[in-house]
Amino acid sequence: MTTPTVPTTEASAAGDPLGFTALESEVRSYSRSWPVVFDRATGATVHAEDGTEYLDFFAGAGTLNYGHNNPLLKQVLLDYLTDDRMVHTLDMFTSARREFLETFSEVILRPRGLDHKVVFPGPGGANAVEAALKLARKVTGRESVINFTNAFHGMTLGALSVTGNSMKRGGAGIPLVHATPMPYDDYFDGDVPDFVYLERLLDDSGSGLNAPAAVIVETVQGEGGINAARAEWLRGLADLCKRHDILLILDDIQMGCGRTGAFFSFEEAGIVPDIICLSKSISGYGLPMALTLVRPELDIWEPGEHNGTFRGFAPAFATASEAIRTYWSDDTLERSTIDKGALVEAHFNSLVARYGDDVLVAKGRGLARGLQTPDGETATRICDEAFSRGLLMETSGPNGEVVKLLPPLTITYDELQRGLKIISESVAAVLD
Amino acid sequence: MTTPTVPTTEASAAGDPLGFTALESEVRSYSRSWPVVFDRATGATVHAEDGTEYLDFFAGAGTLNYGHNNPLLKQVLLDYLTDDRMVHTLDMFTSARREFLETFSEVILRPRGLDHKVVFPGPGGANAVEAALKLARKVTGRESVINFTNAFHGMTLGALSVTGNSMKRGGAGIPLVHATPMPYDDYFDGDVPDFVYLERLLDDSGSGLNAPAAVIVETVQGEGGINAARAEWLRGLADLCKRHDILLILDDIQMGCGRTGAFFSFEEAGIVPDIICLSKSISGYGLPMALTLVRPELDIWEPGEHNGTFRGFAPAFATASEAIRTYWSDDTLERSTIDKGALVEAHFNSLVARYGDDVLVAKGRGLARGLQTPDGETATRICDEAFSRGLLMETSGPNGEVVKLLPPLTITYDELQRGLKIISESVAAVLD
Amino acid sequence: MTTPTVPTTEASAAGDPLGFTALESEVRSYSRSWPVVFDRATGATVHAEDGTEYLDFFAGAGTLNYGHNNPLLKQVLLDYLTDDRMVHTLDMFTSARREFLETFSEVILRPRGLDHKVVFPGPGGANAVEAALKLARKVTGRESVINFTNAFHGMTLGALSVTGNSMKRGGAGIPLVHATPMPYDDYFDGDVPDFVYLERLLDDSGSGLNAPAAVIVETVQGEGGINAARAEWLRGLADLCKRHDILLILDDIQMGCGRTGAFFSFEEAGIVPDIICLSKSISGYGLPMALTLVRPELDIWEPGEHNGTFRGFAPAFATASEAIRTYWSDDTLERSTIDKGALVEAHFNSLVARYGDDVLVAKGRGLARGLQTPDGETATRICDEAFSRGLLMETSGPNGEVVKLLPPLTITYDELQRGLKIISESVAAVLD
Amino acid sequence: MTTPTVPTTEASAAGDPLGFTALESEVRSYSRSWPVVFDRATGATVHAEDGTEYLDFFAGAGTLNYGHNNPLLKQVLLDYLTDDRMVHTLDMFTSARREFLETFSEVILRPRGLDHKVVFPGPGGANAVEAALKLARKVTGRESVINFTNAFHGMTLGALSVTGNSMKRGGAGIPLVHATPMPYDDYFDGDVPDFVYLERLLDDSGSGLNAPAAVIVETVQGEGGINAARAEWLRGLADLCKRHDILLILDDIQMGCGRTGAFFSFEEAGIVPDIICLSKSISGYGLPMALTLVRPELDIWEPGEHNGTFRGFAPAFATASEAIRTYWSDDTLERSTIDKGALVEAHFNSLVARYGDDVLVAKGRGLARGLQTPDGETATRICDEAFSRGLLMETSGPNGEVVKLLPPLTITYDELQRGLKIISESVAAVLD
Repeated sequence: MTTPTVPTTEASAAGDPLGFTALESEVRSYSRSWPVVFDRATGATVHAEDGTEYLDFFAGAGTLNYGHNNPLLKQVLLDYLTDDRMVHTLDMFTSARREFLETFSEVILRPRGLDHKVVFPGPGGANAVEAALKLARKVTGRESVINFTNAFHGMTLGALSVTGNSMKRGGAGIPLVHATPMPYDDYFDGDVPDFVYLERLLDDSGSGLNAPAAVIVETVQGEGGINAARAEWLRGLADLCKRHDILLILDDIQMGCGRTGAFFSFEEAGIVPDIICLSKSISGYGLPMALTLVRPELDIWEPGEHNGTFRGFAPAFATASEAIRTYWSDDTLERSTIDKGALVEAHFNSLVARYGDDVLVAKGRGLARGLQTPDGETATRICDEAFSRGLLMETSGPNGEVVKLLPPLTITYDELQRGLKIISESVAAVLD
Repeated sequence: MTTPTVPTTEASAAGDPLGFTALESEVRSYSRSWPVVFDRATGATVHAEDGTEYLDFFAGAGTLNYGHNNPLLKQVLLDYLTDDRMVHTLDMFTSARREFLETFSEVILRPRGLDHKVVFPGPGGANAVEAALKLARKVTGRESVINFTNAFHGMTLGALSVTGNSMKRGGAGIPLVHATPMPYDDYFDGDVPDFVYLERLLDDSGSGLNAPAAVIVETVQGEGGINAARAEWLRGLADLCKRHDILLILDDIQMGCGRTGAFFSFEEAGIVPDIICLSKSISGYGLPMALTLVRPELDIWEPGEHNGTFRGFAPAFATASEAIRTYWSDDTLERSTIDKGALVEAHFNSLVARYGDDVLVAKGRGLARGLQTPDGETATRICDEAFSRGLLMETSGPNGEVVKLLPPLTITYDELQRGLKIISESVAAVLD
Repeated sequence: MTTPTVPTTEASAAGDPLGFTALESEVRSYSRSWPVVFDRATGATVHAEDGTEYLDFFAGAGTLNYGHNNPLLKQVLLDYLTDDRMVHTLDMFTSARREFLETFSEVILRPRGLDHKVVFPGPGGANAVEAALKLARKVTGRESVINFTNAFHGMTLGALSVTGNSMKRGGAGIPLVHATPMPYDDYFDGDVPDFVYLERLLDDSGSGLNAPAAVIVETVQGEGGINAARAEWLRGLADLCKRHDILLILDDIQMGCGRTGAFFSFEEAGIVPDIICLSKSISGYGLPMALTLVRPELDIWEPGEHNGTFRGFAPAFATASEAIRTYWSDDTLERSTIDKGALVEAHFNSLVARYGDDVLVAKGRGLARGLQTPDGETATRICDEAFSRGLLMETSGPNGEVVKLLPPLTITYDELQRGLKIISESVAAVLD
Repeated sequence: MTTPTVPTTEASAAGDPLGFTALESEVRSYSRSWPVVFDRATGATVHAEDGTEYLDFFAGAGTLNYGHNNPLLKQVLLDYLTDDRMVHTLDMFTSARREFLETFSEVILRPRGLDHKVVFPGPGGANAVEAALKLARKVTGRESVINFTNAFHGMTLGALSVTGNSMKRGGAGIPLVHATPMPYDDYFDGDVPDFVYLERLLDDSGSGLNAPAAVIVETVQGEGGINAARAEWLRGLADLCKRHDILLILDDIQMGCGRTGAFFSFEEAGIVPDIICLSKSISGYGLPMALTLVRPELDIWEPGEHNGTFRGFAPAFATASEAIRTYWSDDTLERSTIDKGALVEAHFNSLVARYGDDVLVAKGRGLARGLQTPDGETATRICDEAFSRGLLMETSGPNGEVVKLLPPLTITYDELQRGLKIISESVAAVLD
């Protein structure tokens, strides 16, 4: 691995050492943190044009759970394309769609006792969320939705209205309504009983809370700062929804597909959401794909009532089917993820022990891990140090104060240890 | 070509001759019209699993302007994937992104005198529209948007609010606000001067119309029934926007990328929109990709204020670059599209002459063509007849009364003639 | 009558010659046009503290149809108060309420074939409109309302959302939604057929117009510039509502109680609105009172679903009963109003003849009359000249370009002639 | 006093023993509880037509703090009317308005160190609230408002959106947005620290709470069940608003004008709201009148940006001026109210002692008092028993479970004791 040398402060300040910015909008963000031009990638390794190598603890923000250009899936994809099988299929019946539906049903849904029907809502996670919100409102005849503090569900108007980040919300240009934020697990550091506010408002006909169609929740808030809800909190939420006849939408876009161990991140809690959103790693190869899974009794759409051009991107169905067969026919990946997660946790705990739990906090579940630092500047400096040492990581949390780790689940132990060592060095460079 | 035999009425009525519906949501629609399982496709030809061949006058609803699995683009895509170049890149700098930006700028924007900056808003057209609406509202500080009767802009909440179809709007489950529909060109069959209502409302401080941030318009309304606005109407609209300090958003998702002849469908009118939405055929290969082009002075986003997981699907950048180089370095495709469009028009005119202009109306521009029939049932029956003869077409219009033709632009003249012959036979089977 | 001398330009410019403005908000408006302190009033005459007399062609913006301190009603009011009858009664049964309900039913509703039930929605016109909108939405299950250009319905949030004036709308501080403005009668000077746009949007399921719960309309738009709709236009609107199952709300707050001749201003058109709003002159004495009349089949409120502290101001019921008995038991007032209106019209026509119909336009119906001038400045100067000559009139219209006459219906012919003479002098002072 | 005999259960069930319901809407409510026809009233005594007398512990829901037809105010009113002074004056300068402004300023505002400017927002409390919300949004440029559980602010759309009661909210017929309910004081019985949720959401840029323009609050929630906030809670709220640059709107419509002792109910807490809403007892005689008081720096209205027909009902100014002079020039009334309140409290405490604090809870402050019973049925039965014994009281609270006492502040000790005795008997009749 070549030590990266390109991103000098000057170039970074210039913002466009590489000639992109004359053409691309100022809205770009990752290229500001990592001002190099990337080109190739395999597994957990990314190569810049200049030959520099980076270890990837970012994995497409959780889209590349099986690594970059996973060779098994690559072969399936190349074969699919080589054979001139259909690429763009909307919601036509295709052999690729059938293969996916059957595989997903047999390997994922049925063994978990789920009988949800599959909606192909469009190519991205926001589509899955939009479809979920639309259906929940249609089914219940109610408009309001309960979301949680520091939630992230997407950038389209419906998804944005249930997202917490104020800068992103401000981008809407219209008041975002029909959503009421409730405290996520541990929002008050354990000082307030779970759901005390939500339940009281729901029970009180004079509370002024519009009766909600649904609650939308993540099991671990990735963008929100790797906040992992406890299983009992999730169960409490599911119970509350049932008692109050509110639909439970579980946004498993970033935390599903094995990120926390099991295929669905909610399995550990033993709950069954009414609607489940999947995207990111579902295709297994970084191909745009999303699913909205709905309990059969909720499937009251009119034909075509929700549609979209890229809801049938068939090569993604092919790689998704193969990824499911390969990684989810047994519990090898699940166990390895939990084991690797424990390894990261132990490493983080040692950092916390060294620097004090008033300085660092270890967060997360499975291979969704966060190291909370005192503020956004510290976390950014740690990530910058890591980048200069060849490691890609991003920050998250309301103030960007959490160093966020989402390595490929298929990362080798050796790579994982190497990355953790860089993190230690980077933390030391900033905090020592 | 095998004559298709599968879709008997019984199977169609059963709705699921092929075993999908136990797994997939009722929201699926195309599979109801074409109850066969498709598998492979090249150019304008689609193959069902059972060996039946179909001629494709649908082209992924305008996503496959260069045909299915176009061999030039296919090779680029296979090379890209074989070389393990990065697939999923968010908005990181990549060599594929740079190649696309430079190619798009040099071949498309600059020669047309456009200095718009490129936003990668997410994988689909709705993302392009959502980003456009957000930016227009942010720039102007106004919330309201003017849309047009029978517009179609997408299914996410922001895009849906400017879409006309009442069934699809109803799917939102909340009142869709902040948009006021105005009559599209020829909405009153020429009886009312253009823009008389809109302009009067804008001029009158007591009109009750909220001052709009933007107007969003299609040059040819595809879903709306292949309604082609006249160039002078588009110019009038652009002038009106300028006079009233309203941003003009041109949704060229379905009609751009050469569907009407020129790369942008608005070139013929000689207007320069403030914001342009592209998607569908921009990748050239049916890969999810979308662009929002914005005048440089409107590019006031904060970094990351709009983002999304699949806004950097790099294989699409590779095929898009190649498609642009191949098809837009000269005017060969443009001229051929116009020529083929004229051929379709002439054929439709002969049908109109035969059945009467009270029965059929020929509509459209370039290779976006429509044959308006008396009602939705007639149009559906014609498409069903065509399907049984091996031709894929869909209906559009508020009541589905328009037979809609969007063949690949690269279709051969022979194929085109074959398809038109099937249409004539299908029309005859229904109307004679 | 003393010629008024007080309002010198300096005092007026100072804005507060009289010491109010240190205490009262800047939102005050009439006191800016008429910077004198008023004290007593009878009939059509108002007395300032300094002894100056004014002739009142304003009549509380249509609240004093029977003149200031009408002696018949005054006696009833004094008796009511002297006898310690209840003043504040919410919606308790009271003898005053029964007397009003019976009188209103016997003298007003039954003879006109109306079987509407009476809602006491609160003390003012905005309450009547708010109740109407709420009930229309509840009955139909739809949210959207059609209003008209230059409509005025009130300043509370619901009423404001269907009001046209952009300055007043801007005061809401939130986007006003759920209303779509349609062109009022003659909005296009006869160039566009009535309702062509509204009807087309309603008929077209792809128009993007949210299905409306109701249309809300004034027969003559007072604030909007004394725009009088033709009877056939009102009939056309009523027919359209019936055909499309839309409720017709007629806001007769300013034009009802005889302002245009008949008790209800819509009687001339022969239509029967589903919901009727009354206020202003209903009490007959300037006492706050309002009614919302609803067809019996629409009366689906829950008890207390709409309420309000001052919905049972009983002295107003007493004067209202007496006013109805006195003025509406025969057609004397109606005929006199029409006659006086014709007199004003003739006078205005002579002014139009003198100054040209490119300068002045005579508008209105009954004793709701307007003289349209080239611009707001001209109209304001005319009203200022009139004020300096002892006549109170205000301007209206989107740009304040219309001199607005709403004299008491009980004004004497002599007073009316005197006022018209002042108007002529004032017009001459400005235009000659 | 005649013992009332009329309201037999049968008559009550019939709903209209007296012939009103054929004419009046089903929305009427008080007449369902008290099915007699009232006619005259003085002080705390109300007389039905049939001669029955009632003691009034309801006082027009807090509108008659100085009793029915208070003789001092009555004389002022009769003189005003007899002298033909102006009744209806919009926002013209009048001597009555000046007298009110000066009196209110000298007797009420200045001695309390308040320099608020006076808006006359319209005739009722809802107008005062609508004006407050509009101005707060205009000043801050924000749309969202924080309200509290079980708040009541009025029935017009803006006021209703910040009101808690779900039945009344449902009457809107549109989703009520732009308001987020927060827990009122003691909502969690002291288990959760004050403002922990609101403050955390405000501090957290990722909370998803739209930045609020204002908080709107009552010091004692009357309709909400006589919930009296502690002074320290109100101070905490005022501090929080200051820290977060949020305007504090204090709705003192029911609790102001001395109901809790001091003229403003917030004086005890020592806070200074940015905007204060007054109505109900401000005229002193049950005449429709309302005020919105705004800090001078917030007075940024355009002239006429908020207006309304009945914002200058001058007889109310006359009685208001006299009431202020009579009752607020010294602290006699204030002390008597507190003393009478203590008497009611002691009586309620004895009832609580007798029946147990699991059955009854004494609530309130000053002469706004409540007796919470186990459920709405119990409270209704107690009020029914009281009515049959000649006492008028209503229920409040989300489930109507609180017997609510708002006697005139000028009630005699003898009347008060008589009423309390009836309450004891009524409670006994239901609970023993």
